[in-house]
Amino acid sequence: MSLFGKEKDTAVTVSTERKALGDCLNAVRASTPLIHNITNYVTVNDVANALLACGGSPIMSDEPMDVFDITSICGGLNINIGTLNERSIEAMAIAGSRARSLKHVILLDPVGAGASTLRTTTAQNIVNTVRPDIIRGNISEIKTLALGSGTTKGVDADLADTVTEENLDEMVSFVKSFAAKVNAVIAITGAIDLVADANVCYVIRNGRPEMSRITGTGCQLSAVATAYAVANPENKVDAVAAAVCLMGLAGEIGWSRMQEGDGNSTYRNRIIDAIFNMDASALEEGAKYEIR
Amino acid sequence: MSLFGKEKDTAVTVSTERKALGDCLNAVRASTPLIHNITNYVTVNDVANALLACGGSPIMSDEPMDVFDITSICGGLNINIGTLNERSIEAMAIAGSRARSLKHVILLDPVGAGASTLRTTTAQNIVNTVRPDIIRGNISEIKTLALGSGTTKGVDADLADTVTEENLDEMVSFVKSFAAKVNAVIAITGAIDLVADANVCYVIRNGRPEMSRITGTGCQLSAVATAYAVANPENKVDAVAAAVCLMGLAGEIGWSRMQEGDGNSTYRNRIIDAIFNMDASALEEGAKYEIR
Amino acid sequence: MSLFGKEKDTAVTVSTERKALGDCLNAVRASTPLIHNITNYVTVNDVANALLACGGSPIMSDEPMDVFDITSICGGLNINIGTLNERSIEAMAIAGSRARSLKHVILLDPVGAGASTLRTTTAQNIVNTVRPDIIRGNISEIKTLALGSGTTKGVDADLADTVTEENLDEMVSFVKSFAAKVNAVIAITGAIDLVADANVCYVIRNGRPEMSRITGTGCQLSAVATAYAVANPENKVDAVAAAVCLMGLAGEIGWSRMQEGDGNSTYRNRIIDAIFNMDASALEEGAKYEIR
Repeated sequence: MSLFGKEKDTAVTVSTERKALGDCLNAVRASTPLIHNITNYVTVNDVANALLACGGSPIMSDEPMDVFDITSICGGLNINIGTLNERSIEAMAIAGSRARSLKHVILLDPVGAGASTLRTTTAQNIVNTVRPDIIRGNISEIKTLALGSGTTKGVDADLADTVTEENLDEMVSFVKSFAAKVNAVIAITGAIDLVADANVCYVIRNGRPEMSRITGTGCQLSAVATAYAVANPENKVDAVAAAVCLMGLAGEIGWSRMQEGDGNSTYRNRIIDAIFNMDASALEEGAKYEIR
Repeated sequence: MSLFGKEKDTAVTVSTERKALGDCLNAVRASTPLIHNITNYVTVNDVANALLACGGSPIMSDEPMDVFDITSICGGLNINIGTLNERSIEAMAIAGSRARSLKHVILLDPVGAGASTLRTTTAQNIVNTVRPDIIRGNISEIKTLALGSGTTKGVDADLADTVTEENLDEMVSFVKSFAAKVNAVIAITGAIDLVADANVCYVIRNGRPEMSRITGTGCQLSAVATAYAVANPENKVDAVAAAVCLMGLAGEIGWSRMQEGDGNSTYRNRIIDAIFNMDASALEEGAKYEIR
Repeated sequence: MSLFGKEKDTAVTVSTERKALGDCLNAVRASTPLIHNITNYVTVNDVANALLACGGSPIMSDEPMDVFDITSICGGLNINIGTLNERSIEAMAIAGSRARSLKHVILLDPVGAGASTLRTTTAQNIVNTVRPDIIRGNISEIKTLALGSGTTKGVDADLADTVTEENLDEMVSFVKSFAAKVNAVIAITGAIDLVADANVCYVIRNGRPEMSRITGTGCQLSAVATAYAVANPENKVDAVAAAVCLMGLAGEIGWSRMQEGDGNSTYRNRIIDAIFNMDASALEEGAKYEIR
């Protein structure tokens, strides 16, 4: 796709010291990072409210004539291909190129990569040319990016479909290796979440299975993770891990507040509410992770 | 509109035995039907959450280059013209043609047919070429489709604007006749709902007038009805009737949970919550219908 | 932008007698004004539900081939450029021209004017050619329109960035002068809200700072203000002031209903709920304003 011009490789600075999750949270609330979102229209309102809840500030724009200016005044760019179209794909290329040249944090959420040729190709082009700092998706989407277009089915025998306690070692190795290859922080979310760069992998066990009965928790997480990385530029892997723990913990807190008769719509509200009310000590106490 | 290629007539199998509404519900929860939605951006988030609440799974895509692949992996296609545009109309044609050739369930929600030439023409083209299995709309929209473009005003004298106890016989006859003509299940929703094929008509009296103070209950119903028909392919009229009863009953249950100071925004959440919590016995007990 | 054809200046009738805010509210509930919204996809669902809550009725359409017909059957047009694109800009021109020729109420919400060239240019073109009856924005957006493209930074020394008690006289004079220049009601919302025509300025002190932690209260207000002006055509400045008081008061009532653990997502629901439940006497008692 010629829309995505070739970009020079820019190194991601990776600190070897860990930054505490609570410090990552505080840095967001202290700096109100402004995030440009090119995102789908299904979950966009929740994405905006989740960004506001975590202490960030959202701007949405997907018009090619508009995105150069808009991304220029932001600190980070969140690209989500959930309802991509010809126009928004062009906008992703323009904004991505501009954000890269300004050294803004760029996150890619490759929604549905592997489910259609357009999604797979677009996500791969963004990885190759925009070179995002962070890629966040489910295991199928990340495998599609890591293992090539059209081979998703063919490789299912080699790599399991989900991250489990049984295949955890293999998956940690896979995600670190892909992170090294694309020089990005990779976040695979599911029952067990993995957040890795080339050297370190957070294995995170927050969250509730009921979160999959709401649309948009993944999209919200991608936006929040962008804000966390913008506010913690020297510690992107810790920042993204903090965002993943935050989202999962918010899912747990939200669920604990459910009343009889409540369902997924109320749950959606309670999760964003829990993000809104989270502070550093609650995040530190509630986060369930190990580092490998 | 040449976008919509001619399709061969495909027969809708209509069982002569009724399937219980609760069995229809259970079939959805047991099979998690995946629904491709080409829908408006006003209510799309509620549509996704309502589908998840009822036991289905939503995918949204409206880009012509994307919809062939996306609809191929789904079980049903929900076409809603609420905020149609040139691009999404093309996507409706491509997805509709593909879904038809795969014998997927297709539902048309002709939002605003009769209110603009573009909406009327687009809805009519979809009826004529995509040949949906189900059409769900309000009485004005269905009358526009049944009685021809531009004649809506002219026929108001013959057919009343709303379904009432007084004109019920006439309306039941009208909807069965239109169902026969287009070989589809027709659902007309309002104070009294009618769900009919050529042979049978459910007359349904669930719901609350306050549901009209929320945007999107109709759009949600269309998506849910698609999922119900996908999960009950031999009993589409019963499945759509089950979905209509479900939505109306959820409106009643949601209203019963309203607290002092609550308004339409909270009501919206409580309706989706009620869909989420509905089971077969609650649906069977709460459904208010007769069959004519 | 040649899309916006030149329009003849149409005089806005300004009554010299004030209409009570509660009477403005009652007029909306009595007439159910139908509002055509060309608005952004971030907050569109909240806009629709807020319109329904206040007693209006929403239609959304942004396709150039559709908007002429749709705006023709409405009473007012709400143009919001929050996620403008090439197609919707064309739709704004067509609908704006049609609504102007039908003497419908037109409101412009210039979201992000000053933040990008496209937004600034589009908003200015709409002001100059569509000639909206009402313009509602924050102080930065209104300053961009009043003081010219590209000069926003340059004039910050002359006009303060926010409306404060200290610069209130100067700001009241500024907003009246801009209202006179463009022959429109101008609403600047912030900690202190100003609603003015050439002769009178409402200074409004309703609202809560926490409203800025939710996306969309400004967009909702613009839609509600359009409905208020449609229902009170001879008293547009009073009607818009009533809408601004309503929104701020709803923010106060919504906040007072917050429970422990609630956050911005629940707050969003409670604000729309409060609009839904507002009546004339509650508005009259709760409104905090002075007229200058």
